[in-house]
Amino acid sequence: MTTNNRVWTAALLVIGDEILSGRTEDRNIAQIASWLNMQGIRLAEVRVIPDDSQAIGEAVLALKDNHDYLFTTGGIGPTHDDITVESISQALRLPVIIHPEAKACLDAYYADRGGVTPARLRMARTPEGATLIKNPVSGAPGVRIGNIFIMAGVPKIVTAMLESLNGTLSGGKPVLSRTVGSWNGESQIAKILQETEKDHALCKLGSYPFFRNGSGGVNLVIRSVDREALNRCAEDLINRLLKEDLSAVDGAI
Amino acid sequence: MTTNNRVWTAALLVIGDEILSGRTEDRNIAQIASWLNMQGIRLAEVRVIPDDSQAIGEAVLALKDNHDYLFTTGGIGPTHDDITVESISQALRLPVIIHPEAKACLDAYYADRGGVTPARLRMARTPEGATLIKNPVSGAPGVRIGNIFIMAGVPKIVTAMLESLNGTLSGGKPVLSRTVGSWNGESQIAKILQETEKDHALCKLGSYPFFRNGSGGVNLVIRSVDREALNRCAEDLINRLLKEDLSAVDGAI
Repeated sequence: MTTNNRVWTAALLVIGDEILSGRTEDRNIAQIASWLNMQGIRLAEVRVIPDDSQAIGEAVLALKDNHDYLFTTGGIGPTHDDITVESISQALRLPVIIHPEAKACLDAYYADRGGVTPARLRMARTPEGATLIKNPVSGAPGVRIGNIFIMAGVPKIVTAMLESLNGTLSGGKPVLSRTVGSWNGESQIAKILQETEKDHALCKLGSYPFFRNGSGGVNLVIRSVDREALNRCAEDLINRLLKEDLSAVDGAI
Repeated sequence: MTTNNRVWTAALLVIGDEILSGRTEDRNIAQIASWLNMQGIRLAEVRVIPDDSQAIGEAVLALKDNHDYLFTTGGIGPTHDDITVESISQALRLPVIIHPEAKACLDAYYADRGGVTPARLRMARTPEGATLIKNPVSGAPGVRIGNIFIMAGVPKIVTAMLESLNGTLSGGKPVLSRTVGSWNGESQIAKILQETEKDHALCKLGSYPFFRNGSGGVNLVIRSVDREALNRCAEDLINRLLKEDLSAVDGAI
């Protein structure tokens, strides 16, 4: 599944009034980003939009062609505000069908839970031509149509859906990272950071300040697809910091 | 500051490789969404993009004209990967200047912290014509240019910057909410939810399933700008649930 050097990218569309109202703190961006990274796919853009058919359609059309993959979360449950499947189908000009395999999943899951009601049957709808993403947690599957992966909003279900997709997508080399922590301020380290990045062409450096219990410091994250280059850069960075009598710790603080 | 009935909207641009790599879980979307809501402004769209000048410029131009306000987080520190100010200035075709007031803030803050070094002086840069957003936490101010509010990425600094903007922006009526919890499943409640929404035109209903310690249920959130309509709808919803022998709790579970 690995093709050399080509960078594979994905976009994520988070669909949900509850995120935009501040009611719910999103937990899916970070887990999907980390999972994609392990598949050798870079998360290049995220959009959060309301449960609105037009907004969903516009965002899907804008994102699916610009990236190798598009993932969506949210809006595939049994209630009237779950409109992701019909909105995406409409945008793609595909009819919505009751997917027989999805219905079979629901029949099995709800057999001893009161059966498949009309509300529950909504969760068997897909655009015509879709395949399913397994959901061992709560029965209702996710949906794959072309390069679009339509997933649930509940983080635990997303985790399970990602597990079922593990290793099935084409990707490049995973981005590796190492972190060097320092109790010095970002502005004291800025020059060394810039010079180190300049001398290590295969690595990208980022600095992430933190404040904890009245003290502060910075975690310096080095990223590369090349493990040896990564390790050389980390050692070099630590040496440069220590040489200037600055604090340097191998690993995140 | 209140104008009747007009809906004021904002977009949020989260700038940061660390969010897209999965290293850092975003904490700013929820706090900015809640704060905007209190100002009577609706967060209508969020985008998360990398520390990339072209991506920043394109997103800023796309979002600033579609909304009353655009907020950005991230990329205004002292290091070489902090490129938000120059990227936005370039997109707006404005020169970058050292803002005298911002420099004065830094001079004061760093007086007994080793003084303003070249790296630290980067944090006094603004597009020409900008005003400042106070930052009592760490000296370096945020930047306002037109309807764009450029803020830090560290959540604690964002909190402080939002506090300093409290009550200064024009907005409409804040959206109020009430939550009714139920230990029944979303699919058992779907029909009641839809019928209740239909009968309460001033309210919008959303349902948010949860799984906890092997049990599950759903929180039903009612939103409205009208407090009386909100309370009528909540009572009606509780009565409809109880009448069908379903679980109903006043408040989130």
